[in-house]
Amino acid sequence: MANDLPPKEEFSDWYNELLFQAEIMDVRYPAKGVYVWFPFGYDLRNNVYDRLKSLHDESGHDEVDFPVLIPEGILAKEGEHIAGFEDEVFWVTHGGRKELDERMALRPTSETPMYTMFDLWIRSHTDLPLKIYQVANIWRSETEHTRPLIRLREITGFKEAHTAHATPEGAEEQVETALSLYEEFYDFLGVPHVVTERPEWDKFPGAEYTYAVDTLMPDGKALQIGTAHNLGQNFAEAFDVEFETQDGEQDHVYQTSYGVSERCIAAVMGVHGDDNGLVLPSEVAPTQVAVVPIPFGDEDENAEIMETCEKIVDELNDAGIRAELDDSEDNPGAKYYKWELKGTPLRAEVGPRDLESGSAKLVNRLGDEAEAGFDTVVKDVREELDALSEEIRETAADDLDASVVECETYDEARDVVDEGFALVGWNGDEDAGKRIEDEVGVDMLGEPRGYGVGDTAIETCIETGDDAKKIVLLANTY
Amino acid sequence: MANDLPPKEEFSDWYNELLFQAEIMDVRYPAKGVYVWFPFGYDLRNNVYDRLKSLHDESGHDEVDFPVLIPEGILAKEGEHIAGFEDEVFWVTHGGRKELDERMALRPTSETPMYTMFDLWIRSHTDLPLKIYQVANIWRSETEHTRPLIRLREITGFKEAHTAHATPEGAEEQVETALSLYEEFYDFLGVPHVVTERPEWDKFPGAEYTYAVDTLMPDGKALQIGTAHNLGQNFAEAFDVEFETQDGEQDHVYQTSYGVSERCIAAVMGVHGDDNGLVLPSEVAPTQVAVVPIPFGDEDENAEIMETCEKIVDELNDAGIRAELDDSEDNPGAKYYKWELKGTPLRAEVGPRDLESGSAKLVNRLGDEAEAGFDTVVKDVREELDALSEEIRETAADDLDASVVECETYDEARDVVDEGFALVGWNGDEDAGKRIEDEVGVDMLGEPRGYGVGDTAIETCIETGDDAKKIVLLANTY
Repeated sequence: MANDLPPKEEFSDWYNELLFQAEIMDVRYPAKGVYVWFPFGYDLRNNVYDRLKSLHDESGHDEVDFPVLIPEGILAKEGEHIAGFEDEVFWVTHGGRKELDERMALRPTSETPMYTMFDLWIRSHTDLPLKIYQVANIWRSETEHTRPLIRLREITGFKEAHTAHATPEGAEEQVETALSLYEEFYDFLGVPHVVTERPEWDKFPGAEYTYAVDTLMPDGKALQIGTAHNLGQNFAEAFDVEFETQDGEQDHVYQTSYGVSERCIAAVMGVHGDDNGLVLPSEVAPTQVAVVPIPFGDEDENAEIMETCEKIVDELNDAGIRAELDDSEDNPGAKYYKWELKGTPLRAEVGPRDLESGSAKLVNRLGDEAEAGFDTVVKDVREELDALSEEIRETAADDLDASVVECETYDEARDVVDEGFALVGWNGDEDAGKRIEDEVGVDMLGEPRGYGVGDTAIETCIETGDDAKKIVLLANTY
Repeated sequence: MANDLPPKEEFSDWYNELLFQAEIMDVRYPAKGVYVWFPFGYDLRNNVYDRLKSLHDESGHDEVDFPVLIPEGILAKEGEHIAGFEDEVFWVTHGGRKELDERMALRPTSETPMYTMFDLWIRSHTDLPLKIYQVANIWRSETEHTRPLIRLREITGFKEAHTAHATPEGAEEQVETALSLYEEFYDFLGVPHVVTERPEWDKFPGAEYTYAVDTLMPDGKALQIGTAHNLGQNFAEAFDVEFETQDGEQDHVYQTSYGVSERCIAAVMGVHGDDNGLVLPSEVAPTQVAVVPIPFGDEDENAEIMETCEKIVDELNDAGIRAELDDSEDNPGAKYYKWELKGTPLRAEVGPRDLESGSAKLVNRLGDEAEAGFDTVVKDVREELDALSEEIRETAADDLDASVVECETYDEARDVVDEGFALVGWNGDEDAGKRIEDEVGVDMLGEPRGYGVGDTAIETCIETGDDAKKIVLLANTY
């Protein structure tokens, strides 16, 4: 018996089937781009978001909760911002049978409601820096093809952080802090990534500049899995967020915002998964160890096998390892496929021979075998869990490294972007940049952070032949 | 210097000021019935909801997340249900500039989206019982006076659980389980409560019967802080949720739903608070111990005081007690008022005399003093935290007990409901019941669970003089 998942090469089918079979999300909810989290999926999500939240807590952000409903007048305060969102905002127009006096948007992001309150919260430089975040739903009226976790109308886990500072340098440094935080988060998930500065025409509406974090999905497309914006004083001016400086002057605050959505879960699925299902880093797997009795002995042996399994589960749980006894009536083969499908890092088997040897057989999600002595089970299991996480992290990182290819010609670039990222030269001119996108038929992700002309063999702009002013990444995108 | 909170007797003003001064919610968000959680308030909320969630996890509920957006066709499937909500549902009618093909409701509660999926999830008796819950926002287009945490348009912490069973008894027992769970939750918060079966005309739209949990607020009004509904097969029939029984027959499932909202936070504030601010049970206080240095010695002594305070904070934190050093520049008096306002259970002071005695002075939120030896600080502090929780629990329980008064006449009842609950006889007839409500000018909460005729001296219906068939509670309500 094997699972009936399509091979991962057929990525789109594989992804949709895996979401359903592994019980992450149910796509059958009868509204476009709106899905239901299954218990298993939500458990995974909680493990991932707990880390994302603790990273924010530890770096001095306070958690808050702001309203979903945004009166139109507030959303419209910053001109570029509303222009960027007006085609995709959902509007609430009626309460019961009555039309509302002022219609309200379902938040597409929280700059406008938050900065309305910043105006009230911030009086003096002693109130700065202000650093808050929330994890909440946001909505976009997507007209394109929707896809669970990736392109949705109802986004159910948008982590957005917003900060205000007394100086432009404070805001610039905070963008760097945000990117470090995201690097740490994605390292934790074993999701390799590139960080680029988005070109002018693709920055966040209302921002001075935007950095984005992208990873590579198995179909060769870049998935944007985080953004960080330096908002300068644009919103502060629109929302009148002033403070008294140390010298007694009035100034507008300097702001940043940065966000990550449940695309981080899609990245974990896409980057690590294989033909047999999910492959999860030990740190976030809802079940880290499935303990499977192999009752192929006589009656006494089988009772001892079951007892041993229960003892192992208890010991692991007591040590903070999420272990589960699989005493279902399925045959061992069916059990293996089920735990594999769900990405369980380790399976521990106990049969008659294991009783004799005094150790359980461990099989990790990649098929590698090891032993856990009954007396050293916590230590042995922990080592194997750590080793597996390390291995999938390294494999994924190597894959990404290999997929970034320097290209001197459009033909090369067109080839490369079928499977990865093309690195090309650009003279920095917007028209030339957009022509590059058109010629290759992709998006310009932008200039990789800390990487420029001179770090590669590329010397000229791929479009004009001028000296390259920037080295930029091109990719197909979601 | 004292705080400038109105006295608790002026409950409405006290409540609104306390929400703001203690930094629980900011009411200045410019939309009716929609508020912002401050960091401190959200921290308190997280502590309260962590317990509510773990109670559900431990009793076999799986956490899920269902959509906010409900297509109109789904919401309208159960006739009584939609009739009960149609005056207060917010409608999303537009996405960007386009009108939607079908308008969508912001969920007022999740029976309809969840049972749409139950139809797909449940096939056989082996899928039952199914027990899920979520904590999420819901919306009601309230036209009445709104009030933070109590009557809102955007409810930000609705815990709703939904279950399906193979038998009517299964559903009945689950309602009892739900009520036990809520009793445990409110005991944890030290919030005394009465559980009653709501009269027929006040049950949940679509339910067979509804139990509710109420507490008493300082203004003499009952605050409904939890409900549990036996839905019978009403929704299962409307949503076609059938299963195959053990005998191979098809039957509709028997369902329950039960919910608690952020009113649980309002209850904690109202029941325990005093003229000086919040009084929080130790278990949920964001800061359990404020450690305050009293630097009234010479330079060496003051350095030692500060060092001792830091050591105490570290030891307490290491032991899992949420302690905070207050090394702000405020004078000690200002510090005391601040921590009092925020309901901090314990203040630990270290001054020159305490260095000599080798112990810190502990002052609990009610003003009682104790000592914590520098060598036994964790044990001593833990004892005082537990004792404080116990004391505020008992005081609150006594207050509620004293406020339930048996009444034989309308005059008595009208007096009693100014400050508490009136217990009266009722012949069980709906018209008579509604006349009782009118005569006393209150709502009938209903029959207290496990309490009936014979448990009191009351023998007759207060309205008709007939033999009383039920003993019911009356109260002013929010």
